[in-house]
Amino acid sequence: MEAFRHFPFETAGEIATAMIRRAYEATQFSPAAQPDIGAIPDAGEGIEGLTEVFRCFLTGSAGLASPGMMGHMDTAPHPAAAFTDALVSAVNNNLLFRELAPFASRVEEMVIGDIGARLGLSAEWAGTFASGGSIANLTALFAAVGGFGDVDKRAQCALFLPECAHVSIRKSAAVLGIAASQVHVVSGDALGRADLSSLRTALRASGARRKVVVGILGSTVHGAVEDIQGLAEISRAHDAWLHVDAIHGGALAFSHRHRELLRGLDSADSVAVGPQKWLYVPRVSSIVWVKDRDRFDRELSVELPYSATGEAHRGRWGLQGSRRADAVTLWAVLRYVGARAVGDQVDRTIDLAGDFWRMLSSDRFLEPTHVPDLNLLCFRYRDNDENAMRLAHQTLGAYGAPWVSLSRWREQLILRSVLLSPSTNETHLARLIESLHRASS
Amino acid sequence: MEAFRHFPFETAGEIATAMIRRAYEATQFSPAAQPDIGAIPDAGEGIEGLTEVFRCFLTGSAGLASPGMMGHMDTAPHPAAAFTDALVSAVNNNLLFRELAPFASRVEEMVIGDIGARLGLSAEWAGTFASGGSIANLTALFAAVGGFGDVDKRAQCALFLPECAHVSIRKSAAVLGIAASQVHVVSGDALGRADLSSLRTALRASGARRKVVVGILGSTVHGAVEDIQGLAEISRAHDAWLHVDAIHGGALAFSHRHRELLRGLDSADSVAVGPQKWLYVPRVSSIVWVKDRDRFDRELSVELPYSATGEAHRGRWGLQGSRRADAVTLWAVLRYVGARAVGDQVDRTIDLAGDFWRMLSSDRFLEPTHVPDLNLLCFRYRDNDENAMRLAHQTLGAYGAPWVSLSRWREQLILRSVLLSPSTNETHLARLIESLHRASS
Repeated sequence: MEAFRHFPFETAGEIATAMIRRAYEATQFSPAAQPDIGAIPDAGEGIEGLTEVFRCFLTGSAGLASPGMMGHMDTAPHPAAAFTDALVSAVNNNLLFRELAPFASRVEEMVIGDIGARLGLSAEWAGTFASGGSIANLTALFAAVGGFGDVDKRAQCALFLPECAHVSIRKSAAVLGIAASQVHVVSGDALGRADLSSLRTALRASGARRKVVVGILGSTVHGAVEDIQGLAEISRAHDAWLHVDAIHGGALAFSHRHRELLRGLDSADSVAVGPQKWLYVPRVSSIVWVKDRDRFDRELSVELPYSATGEAHRGRWGLQGSRRADAVTLWAVLRYVGARAVGDQVDRTIDLAGDFWRMLSSDRFLEPTHVPDLNLLCFRYRDNDENAMRLAHQTLGAYGAPWVSLSRWREQLILRSVLLSPSTNETHLARLIESLHRASS
Repeated sequence: MEAFRHFPFETAGEIATAMIRRAYEATQFSPAAQPDIGAIPDAGEGIEGLTEVFRCFLTGSAGLASPGMMGHMDTAPHPAAAFTDALVSAVNNNLLFRELAPFASRVEEMVIGDIGARLGLSAEWAGTFASGGSIANLTALFAAVGGFGDVDKRAQCALFLPECAHVSIRKSAAVLGIAASQVHVVSGDALGRADLSSLRTALRASGARRKVVVGILGSTVHGAVEDIQGLAEISRAHDAWLHVDAIHGGALAFSHRHRELLRGLDSADSVAVGPQKWLYVPRVSSIVWVKDRDRFDRELSVELPYSATGEAHRGRWGLQGSRRADAVTLWAVLRYVGARAVGDQVDRTIDLAGDFWRMLSSDRFLEPTHVPDLNLLCFRYRDNDENAMRLAHQTLGAYGAPWVSLSRWREQLILRSVLLSPSTNETHLARLIESLHRASS
């Protein structure tokens, strides 16, 4: 079986390094090429096969590192994360048991504690990593409806969410068995942020045994931030659990100038943050916190019979068993770059969204649809011609121009920009506007 | 912001390559060292910080690549997977939308189709990747209880599982809101495999509106394989959904000599396989299939408003939104090694468990607790002295000797071996037996 293991480390490392550099130097957004895939070969192709995988994958992928790529909440991770992930994969720590990941478990605890403190969460909060935002939200909502207790009373739970909530919140409701009649979308403002008095009325009218309110810190379409303090006060008054989906907005933990948007977070009951969005690490990586470690233990703890060595571990918590050492990858970026530079970058992209808003506000053909809270900005043609927008977007889709996504909000098509790349600047925004002018003429 | 991006690719690549090589050459199981972690620094440490992360992480982690590491279902991934993961992280494809991962989406489809065919699944099955075994099982069980339909009738669902089922199945039941009174553990044999006539009786007695049967192909404690064909016949007769948890056993798709264990799989309704176990890729990586693509679409499909470009994509399915290109990593290993060598390795580890069973059967102090179905074997002291076993295990825990886990089965302590490493052979098994002799004398 020597053949199974034989591997030219240096050759593979050199090829991988060259490819990684090219991934970050890509100026194309997306490939014209459609490389051949083939079937799984019977005989191994060795380093040739691996090189071919690298080549096809790179030429066949969207170039997220391009400064013109502003279509989705998809970051080009910091290179420190990419190289660390190779080692994370090789070492393959399992965060299920402390004995399997003695060091990574400590890193996970430190990173969760440090970021929690920057979010303003007091020391009683406990957290764990999870695989992506949807699983983090589901985990928190599972705790909110009672976790492993009172499963038979699930039908008596009600969920109150704003219109701007991510689809994963509705998905979670269905997974948890909360009927549609118990899912209340609270009406609100133009960006779908809940109106506080509507929420109060809805909670007062509800006879549900367990009430769960969801607040959004950075919505998927507009990057809208809700009034967390207000939500927390109303939730407490009605004995409801407040879960804050800060998957995107959690990066404000590092901000120097916009931390006031986090106000009230410590009064929530659970929070989810996704470093894979605005903290420049690869997907999938999320952190979910529950206020009060004892409650976390009570609601979410499960015995794992296949290890009887009994050391404390975070494998008891959450919906997953084996977990990757995502915390180490995030730690690597934070060590390399430092907290200050991360905060600078977060603030800079918020500023850039403000600049873009000003550019669009004075444009003849285009107009912003809202004042940006964070680094997302939606806009459209002033004449609101949906066919023209769709056609123009396809022109951008030919990947010559900076690229935004085509989204839908309240049945209307809009163009949506997410400003994430550290190399995006006003020149790219001007070029995007120019491309849309050209496409519409 | 140049500082945020400046990165010495070649230096980082060289360090990472050297560290990856060391990860695979480790002969120590676990560290004596407890490297310092420190807080998140305010000022970035640049390449020095990254090097320190690499060094601490490597010296502070269990060495899964050691041939004496046989304690858990934790593989040392093939190096091709580790290097590919660096590129997967850099490129950061999102399997949510085809437009974000044009090439990786095709790789995912090919790999799912190819492995599905090797499992004996007919062309009507559809699948998607998920983050780990627990999420894959939860996804399948969500489809089994009706997905996004009939959420209000969740209380009328019943789950029938064998004693040997993984804890994630019970977790999933609680997440889905299936009350404990509707979760039926079917009695069975010494390894917890369901007795078919007990299952038939239980299904006949149930008045549940939706019945879901779980079958296990490779249990977590013993690697036990259930009679899938028998389970499928009974499930069909009682209009129950059969989900097969083949998270570990799914690697039999590549086996040359043990494929008969997969018999009946095509008669199931859903299957979950975890390449992260026995197919030598890093966690977290799983595939979940549902029979009948239309049913998958109907039960698990959800609209995503933030892209209106409308291309077909697998982001509609499953519980996650953003997903990592795990399929590309698996594809890299399969291209490098080839399907035949993977099958050889699977068969070889099953043979080795048989060898170990013979060695233990003729030992004076130790005895196997079962005949192995796959590459897992549990054993204990013949006098069944739990204190002595616990003490002896702690001696192994000092990491001088080959290492197995201490597990619990039906309230009894047992030692548990999982034979995964390609470099483990009879010499290591003999050394393990000798260490346990020495520890007990």
